[in-house]
Amino acid sequence: MTTGFFGDITPIQYEGPDSTNELAYRHYNPEEVVLGKTLKEHLRFAVAYWHSLVWPGGDPFGGQTFERPWYGDTLDHARRKADVAFEMFSLLGAPYFCFHDADIRPEGTDFAENTSNLNAIVDYFGPKMEETGTKLLWGTANLFSHRRYMSGAATNPDPEVFAFAAATVKTCIDATHRLGGENYVLWGGREGYETLLNTDIGREDAQAGRFLNMVVDYKHKIGFRGTILIEPKPQEPTKHQYDYDVATVYGFLKRHGLENEVKLNIEQGHAILAGHSFEHELHLARALGILGSIDMNRNDYQSGWDTDQFPNNVPEMALAYYEILKNGGLGTGGTNFDSKLRRQSIDPQDLLIGHIGGMDCCARGLKAAAAMLEDGALETPLKARYAGWDDGIGTEIQAGMDLESLAAKVEGGINPQPVSGRQEALENIVNRYV
Amino acid sequence: MTTGFFGDITPIQYEGPDSTNELAYRHYNPEEVVLGKTLKEHLRFAVAYWHSLVWPGGDPFGGQTFERPWYGDTLDHARRKADVAFEMFSLLGAPYFCFHDADIRPEGTDFAENTSNLNAIVDYFGPKMEETGTKLLWGTANLFSHRRYMSGAATNPDPEVFAFAAATVKTCIDATHRLGGENYVLWGGREGYETLLNTDIGREDAQAGRFLNMVVDYKHKIGFRGTILIEPKPQEPTKHQYDYDVATVYGFLKRHGLENEVKLNIEQGHAILAGHSFEHELHLARALGILGSIDMNRNDYQSGWDTDQFPNNVPEMALAYYEILKNGGLGTGGTNFDSKLRRQSIDPQDLLIGHIGGMDCCARGLKAAAAMLEDGALETPLKARYAGWDDGIGTEIQAGMDLESLAAKVEGGINPQPVSGRQEALENIVNRYV
Amino acid sequence: MTTGFFGDITPIQYEGPDSTNELAYRHYNPEEVVLGKTLKEHLRFAVAYWHSLVWPGGDPFGGQTFERPWYGDTLDHARRKADVAFEMFSLLGAPYFCFHDADIRPEGTDFAENTSNLNAIVDYFGPKMEETGTKLLWGTANLFSHRRYMSGAATNPDPEVFAFAAATVKTCIDATHRLGGENYVLWGGREGYETLLNTDIGREDAQAGRFLNMVVDYKHKIGFRGTILIEPKPQEPTKHQYDYDVATVYGFLKRHGLENEVKLNIEQGHAILAGHSFEHELHLARALGILGSIDMNRNDYQSGWDTDQFPNNVPEMALAYYEILKNGGLGTGGTNFDSKLRRQSIDPQDLLIGHIGGMDCCARGLKAAAAMLEDGALETPLKARYAGWDDGIGTEIQAGMDLESLAAKVEGGINPQPVSGRQEALENIVNRYV
Amino acid sequence: MTTGFFGDITPIQYEGPDSTNELAYRHYNPEEVVLGKTLKEHLRFAVAYWHSLVWPGGDPFGGQTFERPWYGDTLDHARRKADVAFEMFSLLGAPYFCFHDADIRPEGTDFAENTSNLNAIVDYFGPKMEETGTKLLWGTANLFSHRRYMSGAATNPDPEVFAFAAATVKTCIDATHRLGGENYVLWGGREGYETLLNTDIGREDAQAGRFLNMVVDYKHKIGFRGTILIEPKPQEPTKHQYDYDVATVYGFLKRHGLENEVKLNIEQGHAILAGHSFEHELHLARALGILGSIDMNRNDYQSGWDTDQFPNNVPEMALAYYEILKNGGLGTGGTNFDSKLRRQSIDPQDLLIGHIGGMDCCARGLKAAAAMLEDGALETPLKARYAGWDDGIGTEIQAGMDLESLAAKVEGGINPQPVSGRQEALENIVNRYV
Repeated sequence: MTTGFFGDITPIQYEGPDSTNELAYRHYNPEEVVLGKTLKEHLRFAVAYWHSLVWPGGDPFGGQTFERPWYGDTLDHARRKADVAFEMFSLLGAPYFCFHDADIRPEGTDFAENTSNLNAIVDYFGPKMEETGTKLLWGTANLFSHRRYMSGAATNPDPEVFAFAAATVKTCIDATHRLGGENYVLWGGREGYETLLNTDIGREDAQAGRFLNMVVDYKHKIGFRGTILIEPKPQEPTKHQYDYDVATVYGFLKRHGLENEVKLNIEQGHAILAGHSFEHELHLARALGILGSIDMNRNDYQSGWDTDQFPNNVPEMALAYYEILKNGGLGTGGTNFDSKLRRQSIDPQDLLIGHIGGMDCCARGLKAAAAMLEDGALETPLKARYAGWDDGIGTEIQAGMDLESLAAKVEGGINPQPVSGRQEALENIVNRYV
Repeated sequence: MTTGFFGDITPIQYEGPDSTNELAYRHYNPEEVVLGKTLKEHLRFAVAYWHSLVWPGGDPFGGQTFERPWYGDTLDHARRKADVAFEMFSLLGAPYFCFHDADIRPEGTDFAENTSNLNAIVDYFGPKMEETGTKLLWGTANLFSHRRYMSGAATNPDPEVFAFAAATVKTCIDATHRLGGENYVLWGGREGYETLLNTDIGREDAQAGRFLNMVVDYKHKIGFRGTILIEPKPQEPTKHQYDYDVATVYGFLKRHGLENEVKLNIEQGHAILAGHSFEHELHLARALGILGSIDMNRNDYQSGWDTDQFPNNVPEMALAYYEILKNGGLGTGGTNFDSKLRRQSIDPQDLLIGHIGGMDCCARGLKAAAAMLEDGALETPLKARYAGWDDGIGTEIQAGMDLESLAAKVEGGINPQPVSGRQEALENIVNRYV
Repeated sequence: MTTGFFGDITPIQYEGPDSTNELAYRHYNPEEVVLGKTLKEHLRFAVAYWHSLVWPGGDPFGGQTFERPWYGDTLDHARRKADVAFEMFSLLGAPYFCFHDADIRPEGTDFAENTSNLNAIVDYFGPKMEETGTKLLWGTANLFSHRRYMSGAATNPDPEVFAFAAATVKTCIDATHRLGGENYVLWGGREGYETLLNTDIGREDAQAGRFLNMVVDYKHKIGFRGTILIEPKPQEPTKHQYDYDVATVYGFLKRHGLENEVKLNIEQGHAILAGHSFEHELHLARALGILGSIDMNRNDYQSGWDTDQFPNNVPEMALAYYEILKNGGLGTGGTNFDSKLRRQSIDPQDLLIGHIGGMDCCARGLKAAAAMLEDGALETPLKARYAGWDDGIGTEIQAGMDLESLAAKVEGGINPQPVSGRQEALENIVNRYV
Repeated sequence: MTTGFFGDITPIQYEGPDSTNELAYRHYNPEEVVLGKTLKEHLRFAVAYWHSLVWPGGDPFGGQTFERPWYGDTLDHARRKADVAFEMFSLLGAPYFCFHDADIRPEGTDFAENTSNLNAIVDYFGPKMEETGTKLLWGTANLFSHRRYMSGAATNPDPEVFAFAAATVKTCIDATHRLGGENYVLWGGREGYETLLNTDIGREDAQAGRFLNMVVDYKHKIGFRGTILIEPKPQEPTKHQYDYDVATVYGFLKRHGLENEVKLNIEQGHAILAGHSFEHELHLARALGILGSIDMNRNDYQSGWDTDQFPNNVPEMALAYYEILKNGGLGTGGTNFDSKLRRQSIDPQDLLIGHIGGMDCCARGLKAAAAMLEDGALETPLKARYAGWDDGIGTEIQAGMDLESLAAKVEGGINPQPVSGRQEALENIVNRYV
């Protein structure tokens, strides 16, 4: 029995690259095996509840454009929303979904009502997940939309807000745990500042460290096996957000002794806003051992805010999945579409079409990355480039030479000559695969 | 005996705010006492050798615009340059200067010649420093201009380049030590990458950590008491530079066990390029205990490259010096003018005028900051804003509550209400002082 | 009789620079005479209805933070809002205000109800304007918030939307005319595109030109003496907006024969987003003869969206008012505070404090600009710099030499030498005044 | 007889998509026919003399990395450079090249020597062009590198610099004419300003308009049939450049009566720096009737300066060539590789590899664009979207309705409903072709 929202549509099928059916996959064949795993296992796609089911199409200069029968503030509306949500997951064949508490339940007037509303929907989700086979990639708490959080949640100058936020996170971890979620995410939407004139970064950093330690302790206490993930973002909504980028969050984790407990959920759009490429953030997180999961979308390079578009540039995505494959995959993480329709895309089918295009592009990117890896197309020249560090003076330096002994060697006649970096040749090689 | 380069000019004097003499200080009275120290002691001004004496006025689309009698590649040219340099320091009354090896000596054909040229000029500097009373704020090695460093110095894929760089740093620390330098700076101009396609960040990070540990060890071995400083910058010349910003360098230091050995030299322009305000970077470094020194200049907010202009916006500078005063000053650090003339400012006097304007603005900024601090103009509301953390639930949280006990408290009735952040009121307060 | 919203507050008075009363002007003395006019006459301050009375404090990641008793969708709410609005204008002593139709009236279900609601509030405004002496600087139509405009108003692919927009503009010009408005503004919030894939710029340009010609014709027909103003902005809400910046709008006006009929309303924040300084946009509009009015605010240079902060950097504002003074003032235009509180500034008094700070900064900026102008501080060197064009070869070139005759002259021995641009000296001069 | 510079290399051949030979074309088969023309005729590739033969690999933080036997300041060096240049054009099979005067001749001490040097090399080029069949796409004058132009060429405050620049342009048009060049380009590298404090935009605009009119008059006088092209760029080298983008240059041309005489040479990197996509600039120029030629390269979206990389993102290039095909091609224009090697790509073969990759990507982009056009993949939905303007109220509006009659119609019951813009569906369609 369908809700009728999507009309007369059957589940999206793989039809191959030559299909012109806009409601079919052209590249995402879930059972296709690449490097020993199916695409479904590699990509671990998740649909984001907030963008697809909750966001009304507003922007800072205009209100709602979407008209959805489930918009409203009651538990009944929330259940109708869930009905369409799981129908959509099934139509797409998406194995996972993700949510904030505020996406799935009506807002209450206090903590108790929030909790009770949340639990009511968690109860409603259980059978639906069972029936459709959809699993929870991660849950999270929305600690940024309500006005109580306007000056931060963990980093609020008012400890009562910290307390409210902490209690809320507890209920969300509980919900995630009950639903078999594979990760729990924290995005510090209001953990940052609007003006330094009223801000003490040192104090707020200590608060944030305390908060995250409490979360990790609680996870262990209740036996939640999922990964705790932090999602970096540099700015927006606040002028400056503390979890700026991968390098910044690494320093934060290290400072608070959490670098082995917490990993990162990295978003393409947030990487762009921080001045980095997506592959940079993935590569760096991989090198630091904290790559956990990805939020797949695309930010307009020329818009200075979070555009959260569906990804569509395959060459870029190939480089992203290349890093993920080199990481040995995403572990408990996955590919969450933190992507929203443009607000003019008001038809129900647009919701499916956006995801279909995104999933196809991810599949193309992953397959290209896998082929590059299998061929050693980039690995072979990379190893050759650093080969000098694998013996001779390279190993001596690593073994502990000091400045003076090294200077003596150089005086003895070292005068190194540069070698071509061959960037264009490598770019041409990548273009053979995409 | 003067070189005649600046014509018939006597040392720049303080003439007070009403002076219209463009060759006089209007705000920088070195002996004026503020918060118990003279302006000279607070500001610790340094002139940067490279911009003022070496840079020919070129940019990516045009060559030399300045015509200086000391341009040339011999030791004689280098000595004429030094003559003018110290004359300029004296005319300005600048207590310090800073240099790279490549600024002060001719480039040799190999390491030995570089070292011998460097030592020749260090010998020439000694008496000049004595005579003029100018001291060395910091020395540094240029590990980015020569083609051997095109793919990095410490992070080069070729260990021989690492060796050459390390040996060069040794000679520069030696020179700095001999000249009584109060700090030694490392700026990783080529420590980064142009393309990820040929880069292994993990390997390069390990190399960079090894290099910096060698530098710190050597400092201790020879008894150099100055501070080792890293200068962050996000990009340019390389697409991505490893020492991106304060938070990134903190993580690097922590990863390599150096957070108590190394501090930061923070530049306004580099802060801007990283997407931060200068005061953000200073505040953060202060909170992390790694604020060491500053490179004062101004980057055009709307030009995406390092513009290194002389600073001129006093309200911005007041906020910067406010952070420095809250840090208890800069310790062994100082205010280095990493500022260059616009390439159309080709007259000798422009060199003085640029510095005079910059020093006056710094003095105005510092005095405004000191007044704000003395009045508690920002501190009083700041303390009030966080007062909740100093007792009650605030101290309980810090003392070790866990999520469950906190949730129980919230269930007991916590429902916090937001309080105005008063940003506009605080901005108006700052405008009383600038 | 007051609404009580602002509590027990009396009209804001000028108390001079030493006042520490946050509810007093320190620099804006409306009757102070500068260059032969009072500050009130120069600055022509207006309060923007939308930011101060309508915006609820939301951003893309959070909802309402302000709680105002007039929020609601009825004509009664609209009248309560008007009561507070005019109380605020009076408290501030602001001579003008500005509005969109959608700011002042409840949204109807169709054009007729919109028009009737608008007229009801216009009726309500009349006596209030009389009583308080507040005048209307400009009115405008909101053609961007309602979902019917999601793909543009004048540039919509659906001519019925063009028609609806045109009819709405007619009602707004009528309202502005009735209220004695001195200008009428058009901001093309949705005149642009989200994706080129579904856009025909040529067609949409023709539509926009047709629309503006209709507006100008109507103005003349009804005898409206105010100025028609276009407000440029480069992006946000749409990815690309057609009225990108001053130069772009000039080309549009020229293409459609309107360069003598329409002027520009230039906003600091929009200039910044277009990659220009505010003073650049003002200078260019002045040079092109189309400088009409200004929207005063401040955009964060490092946030890529419209931040609409209250202005607070006096040195920047001095350069802006310098251009305005060189333009001979703003004519029928004025200084509209298109500025909004930060969403954490939730107290009623914050509304006053934001405006007080902004008005004081404008007054400081204007006075500094006037002094620079009176002293010829910048004009004298400017004229000297271009003096070569006032006789000799300069006038010959302008009189019509061709390439060949000019080449012959150069062959005869012209080999020009560069002259210092003295940028730093000029910046120091400006710093004498701010 | 070869110069030996490229070693033992034979002309680059088309080998098809499966080739892994890095010195072969995989997609650029010059004789392949698409939409009735060969790829060679569509693409009209040109090699840029400056990047490939002149630029030494320097950047603002480092000097020369390339070592080329022809670097030097004599006519002999210039001839050796020409030998390698034409060898390279032949190896690549590039039908065209482009140059600045300063690229091909040594710098003289005055105008006469510059002219004589230029003519000597033009004499040397003639037979080489004949022999290799390489043609000149366009010539141009370098009016930005020499210090005489530091404050502008046409817009210099000194009319003698204007004269020198004008005379130089005459010699360059003469040279272009003699060599059968198909266009003549003006890029205003220094036509802009560093600081408004010493600038009068109105005066400089008048100078620039006068200059361009002289150029156009001269073209007609000597019977040069090529197109005069202006190349827009927003900033760098100057803080603000007058020829900011397509819209700005259109306004300039219109103001000076030149919109039918001059077209535009549009560069991908410059579009990016101006905040636009390349396809936006092409589409707009097409709509305004001034699309002339393109400079193909790629700017890093996250580096705020001109990176001039070889293009490598095929999906982006497909959208660019789509606009060109809709323009009916480039007329006398072509695809000039204003692209330079990364400075670490120091091997001679890198020069060929960069161009091969770029040409292959252009060919892929063009073929994808042609297929989209043939299928009506984007055109069919585009026409449908605007269909309302082709009859009914749409044609009435265009035929001259006024605001009142339109308002009457709307009162009669127009209440338009929005229609999906289908952006994601269109993006998916494009991804079928790339």
